[in-house]
Amino acid sequence: MKVVRAEIIAIGDELLYGQIMDTNSHWISQELDLVGVKVVRKTTVGDDQKDILAAFESAEKRADLILITGGLGPTKDDLTKPLLAKYFDCEVIEFPEAVKAVSDYFVRRGREMTPLNILQGHLPSCCSYIPNEVGTAPGMWFERNNTYWMSMPGVPHEMKKLMKDFVLPKLPEIFPLPVIHHKVIKTVGIGESWLADLIEEWENALPKSIRLAYLPSLGHVKLRLTGFGSSKSELEQAIDDQIKLVFPLIEKYVYGFDSETLETAIAKLLKAEKKTIALAESCTGGYISHLITSISGSSDYFQGGIIPYHNQFKAELLGVETATLEQFGAVSEETVKEMANGVRKQFKSDFGLASSGIAGPTGGSDEKPVGTVWIACSMEGHTEAKKLQLTQDRLLNIQLTGVAVLNMLRICILKK
Amino acid sequence: MKVVRAEIIAIGDELLYGQIMDTNSHWISQELDLVGVKVVRKTTVGDDQKDILAAFESAEKRADLILITGGLGPTKDDLTKPLLAKYFDCEVIEFPEAVKAVSDYFVRRGREMTPLNILQGHLPSCCSYIPNEVGTAPGMWFERNNTYWMSMPGVPHEMKKLMKDFVLPKLPEIFPLPVIHHKVIKTVGIGESWLADLIEEWENALPKSIRLAYLPSLGHVKLRLTGFGSSKSELEQAIDDQIKLVFPLIEKYVYGFDSETLETAIAKLLKAEKKTIALAESCTGGYISHLITSISGSSDYFQGGIIPYHNQFKAELLGVETATLEQFGAVSEETVKEMANGVRKQFKSDFGLASSGIAGPTGGSDEKPVGTVWIACSMEGHTEAKKLQLTQDRLLNIQLTGVAVLNMLRICILKK
Repeated sequence: MKVVRAEIIAIGDELLYGQIMDTNSHWISQELDLVGVKVVRKTTVGDDQKDILAAFESAEKRADLILITGGLGPTKDDLTKPLLAKYFDCEVIEFPEAVKAVSDYFVRRGREMTPLNILQGHLPSCCSYIPNEVGTAPGMWFERNNTYWMSMPGVPHEMKKLMKDFVLPKLPEIFPLPVIHHKVIKTVGIGESWLADLIEEWENALPKSIRLAYLPSLGHVKLRLTGFGSSKSELEQAIDDQIKLVFPLIEKYVYGFDSETLETAIAKLLKAEKKTIALAESCTGGYISHLITSISGSSDYFQGGIIPYHNQFKAELLGVETATLEQFGAVSEETVKEMANGVRKQFKSDFGLASSGIAGPTGGSDEKPVGTVWIACSMEGHTEAKKLQLTQDRLLNIQLTGVAVLNMLRICILKK
Repeated sequence: MKVVRAEIIAIGDELLYGQIMDTNSHWISQELDLVGVKVVRKTTVGDDQKDILAAFESAEKRADLILITGGLGPTKDDLTKPLLAKYFDCEVIEFPEAVKAVSDYFVRRGREMTPLNILQGHLPSCCSYIPNEVGTAPGMWFERNNTYWMSMPGVPHEMKKLMKDFVLPKLPEIFPLPVIHHKVIKTVGIGESWLADLIEEWENALPKSIRLAYLPSLGHVKLRLTGFGSSKSELEQAIDDQIKLVFPLIEKYVYGFDSETLETAIAKLLKAEKKTIALAESCTGGYISHLITSISGSSDYFQGGIIPYHNQFKAELLGVETATLEQFGAVSEETVKEMANGVRKQFKSDFGLASSGIAGPTGGSDEKPVGTVWIACSMEGHTEAKKLQLTQDRLLNIQLTGVAVLNMLRICILKK
């Protein structure tokens, strides 16, 4: 099967001068990769006639599919539309349906339309008009010599809607695409190379039709399995079979699949068990509570938190013994356990979590260098603690501690 | 003065397949814009010999400066180095100084060097070796027919260090660059178009040598003044004069200049006044405490926080009257003021801040729709509160409330 080659062209001075980061091309790449289209080049050019035409010309030589973003606003800086008309050798004419859509858009929002906006309904006569339901600049679809072109606005949510509603469903109609199925295994608490060691034999024995990718990110590693074939149901079965084989090797690190996050996985566990949590955050300063409360519905299981940034408040609000603080210091197993117990009692929750450490970049000592962090999880009758030795970077230490605490909570819920 | 034209080439399959977002090109664009070099194109190509050579060839036709990132690892996928040698028609040879640097790098980290790593000290004979102090792949500098080329690793912090230490200082030596001076005014609490209205007359009267850019981001607007000329000191003076003119018009929205953030501006104010703060966060769930404690040294002025996610704890931990909660509800002026007072007393701080709202997407009512948020700032003898009407998006509501609370604190400190 011939590989379908795609090229992405982003247009706009603001992208070249660093005023806006081009996140569109990245998103489009990911979506095309998922359906088996190969992106061979991304090009960014400014609002310059010669540069834009040169980009069109060389793209047509290389690619089967050309996706263009940006340069579609109503002002004179925006050149994409007249240049596409020029490139495809046709006139810009009124598309009554497109003018009506722009006009309806303004009516719906109760805003007044300017003559410039009406012009957004004028398009090259040789394109197919693709309605943009969430903005005023329409999509434009061109076909010539078995190469397919789509021009979309640069506004990310408008581009994404046109991709999802029109381009992605269109691709299997015009290209002989392989059937592809993806499944992502989400792991936490193990580094990429250790994970690779654990599953080496399994990985080496994978059938050729299934590809494995390691996608690491802060404290997490995602394993993406991609199957290529001709039958969707057979692929799903083949990947499920492989997951059944690998799962026992890595079970304790797996918190979910596909779009699951550590926070949503914990939400499910807590809701299923009807359990609640509370947090005492010293070195993480509210970060973990923020992660948890970013999930809608977290008030079902999150009772609250205390950020005792000074020893005095660790004692007053959490009941940590002054003797413990004096003898072992704030960054110690003893203190972090008392914090976790204290916050659990204070908020009458099933689990109490705590963090205490030296986030840095200052405040370290020989005995407790920057990056030393203690974390704890307390439940009725049992409290466990763990020491982390992290980095010199304050924000990174906060984030890594966040992942470690959430993972400790996950394991505590499962054990209970 | 001739405009210096630059092109950025990013190399790597992982960029085309959407596994990694190319943040390098954006950063390089910003840095080149600051020194008056015009980026005319960005190109991303995969690990493919033909595509890479084609990108080199067309870049050389268009640009005076070509910056290449990626494709420099020790594995066979990485093609940049052999292809640069081929393109410039020279051999890859051992650079003893570069081999020593790689070897020293491994010794410093106590790690073992593989034969593949030694090869990282082998470079095209026609390049200048540019040491990479924070990684193993060296920079390579080429010159031909008045076009200058720099190849750098794709790892962002390695690329940035090579740019800062070598490329950016080199540019004024090889190109006739304009003298440029930038000054950024940081504002908060006013939207872009309102700000533009306030300073319209001043903006229209700006001399031609000074350009103004509005750079909006979540709750903030940055005003960047850029002066072009031939004398640095004259430009600095001219921009300072303009700032003196505009400052009285926008003074109450300005929290700082250049790299100042709202968090660091507040840190300075609190340290100067020797004042402390504490937070009671309901709808923001720890986010604001996290922003504050992300700043090193925040323990000097941040006493701590309480996240009372349920009414019971607003009463028990912050002393909010049960009658207040029953009569006005948790999201009300009365409750948020009592929360701010309560947390100030609990932590014995000079200022108490509080948030309470409906972050969404569920939990709204006709009277208090999603996005309704109350915030308050309490100090000895005076408490003020403000109602915000935000969006349907949970995370955005949390972030916008964060900016509003920090700005309220800033204003309270200044008033006191």
